[in-house]
Amino acid sequence: MSKFLSPLYSSLVEYVPGEQPQDKKYIKLNTNESPFPPCRQVLEALNEKETARLNLYCDPESKMLKEALAKQYGVKKENVFVANGSDDILNFAFMAYAREDGCAFADITYGFYKVFAQLYGINAQIIPLKADFTLSADDYCGINKFIAIANPNAPTGICLPLAEIEKVIESNPDNVVLIDEAYVDFGGESAIKLIDKYPNLLVVQTFSKSRSMAGARLGFAIANEQLIKDLEKIKFSTNPYNVNRLTQLAGICTIENQAYYDKNAKEIIASREFTTKKLEELGFTVLDSKANFIFAKSDKISGEELYLSLKERGILVRHFTAERIKEFNRITIGTLQQMECFIKETENILKEKNL
Amino acid sequence: MSKFLSPLYSSLVEYVPGEQPQDKKYIKLNTNESPFPPCRQVLEALNEKETARLNLYCDPESKMLKEALAKQYGVKKENVFVANGSDDILNFAFMAYAREDGCAFADITYGFYKVFAQLYGINAQIIPLKADFTLSADDYCGINKFIAIANPNAPTGICLPLAEIEKVIESNPDNVVLIDEAYVDFGGESAIKLIDKYPNLLVVQTFSKSRSMAGARLGFAIANEQLIKDLEKIKFSTNPYNVNRLTQLAGICTIENQAYYDKNAKEIIASREFTTKKLEELGFTVLDSKANFIFAKSDKISGEELYLSLKERGILVRHFTAERIKEFNRITIGTLQQMECFIKETENILKEKNL
Repeated sequence: MSKFLSPLYSSLVEYVPGEQPQDKKYIKLNTNESPFPPCRQVLEALNEKETARLNLYCDPESKMLKEALAKQYGVKKENVFVANGSDDILNFAFMAYAREDGCAFADITYGFYKVFAQLYGINAQIIPLKADFTLSADDYCGINKFIAIANPNAPTGICLPLAEIEKVIESNPDNVVLIDEAYVDFGGESAIKLIDKYPNLLVVQTFSKSRSMAGARLGFAIANEQLIKDLEKIKFSTNPYNVNRLTQLAGICTIENQAYYDKNAKEIIASREFTTKKLEELGFTVLDSKANFIFAKSDKISGEELYLSLKERGILVRHFTAERIKEFNRITIGTLQQMECFIKETENILKEKNL
Repeated sequence: MSKFLSPLYSSLVEYVPGEQPQDKKYIKLNTNESPFPPCRQVLEALNEKETARLNLYCDPESKMLKEALAKQYGVKKENVFVANGSDDILNFAFMAYAREDGCAFADITYGFYKVFAQLYGINAQIIPLKADFTLSADDYCGINKFIAIANPNAPTGICLPLAEIEKVIESNPDNVVLIDEAYVDFGGESAIKLIDKYPNLLVVQTFSKSRSMAGARLGFAIANEQLIKDLEKIKFSTNPYNVNRLTQLAGICTIENQAYYDKNAKEIIASREFTTKKLEELGFTVLDSKANFIFAKSDKISGEELYLSLKERGILVRHFTAERIKEFNRITIGTLQQMECFIKETENILKEKNL
């Protein structure tokens, strides 16, 4: 860091994205991407005619994209916000809603919440998940703070019933409750249906997981019109053109071809169940996941050793070093073929080590 | 705004991008875009094979793009930062470098500097340009604040000699001086050559103007390695994947085909000189521009009236309401044909009004 950097950031520890080693070709099960390409219509829409217009700014209001999302979710355009990935929205939400009362989130959840709190010097109440890694809604009731809950949670994959989520929202009427539904399309239940009931509910989703657009950067939020106006204000005060021209177009085409993505999500769910069963047969503990990844550990091999052994064999999974979860690995669900390969290599590792 | 929004933003006035009316097809001379499409190689590179990989995250470190930029500017990869448009970088710079000592910029300059200062509650010293709209470097010497200077300036187009810029950098060794070179390729002189001499110099450029990529969102900064590390820290604490997959690829192809963009810049400069001459023949005052736009006013017609009359005739230019410049319009330089059309319509407006 330079001597010029504000001391506000002296203890800031930035987020570490999943590794992307370039030394060989890996089966990449470490960043929760979809193994499926965007649908044919997206590929056809991003053609030379559109690329030739890249000299022109995109629509900073993303009107057509918002209209498509509004239609898909049965809300008004004014209930929709779009940004450069859901991280962009989380950032805006921490800026907008957590400054005075502080924030609260789980000890084991998406690692970026902690970074945003540090970035803005926001007091954070870290609430431990229960011993079985489920979240107790009661811990969040009436705490009068900005609350961020990933549902399904990452990296556990565990999903909280909507009735529990609603308790949290209802009991904190003076603070925004952000429900981060990045993984909701793999078996969760969305809180979007509650936005008219609770002006403090902010639901955030992404095109990076079930919608096969991680590399295009598109996230969206659905909420009461007033919250959306707040987010627009922050966006137009930082980076009004944050969703680029081709991404807006790809987003619209994606929404118009939801059936393809629903089919893919079903396949991923089936592969998740297959992988879970196989790992359990190998003696692993696998948390009950409603996401496109599973969180698993074995008493026979440490989390780190399995991660490194798989990497040697060309399979990347994500290992975290936090004490409570260091024996686990988070394994993204790829194609069935990729998961068969993952299972086979895991078996081989255990065998070779005589475990 | 909702009741939940932090009072930190209660007086924040967001940036207003140039209008994009959809009622008819306009000759768009209001947002300083290039009238030329990206080069053929960019169109060919963004093909179905690449689009089919949008399910995968982009490289958050943008290694290949940084290497290409480093080679183009004769610096190291570690001297290069890339982000989602140069607004993204300006935002990070205000966050990082202006918090304690405050900031300074001209009264007439890129309107976003003021917004960033408001957004972060940063004390701003607004320094008036001289009566002829040139910037006096002496006003900025030894003021011990974060300084942002657009060079060439917007919306005036006036360029400050590099020796003047250097005086400002040299005399504020304890603060970062940001030189915003969005328009430098149309006749300005870049400060990039000074980065090894001054650890407090941050040069910001964009692919949105001379490089025909406004709709793709790509900006970059070149500076001392330590400043780049600061910016990376902020980026990885807000939105690590901010430059998407296709934009990184388009950026690399653009750099590899610089000759095409140099030729386009020359054409724009020629059209700028043509337009300036014609407007002067019509009695306009036109500031000396080194950018891809001109800033012009007439004693015969108010700035607003000309703007509205041109809009009626299908030509969009940008009119600002600030007192000091309200008689001017900022006219982006399009193709020669577009500029001929603009001149003809301006002539017609003056004639019809018997001016």
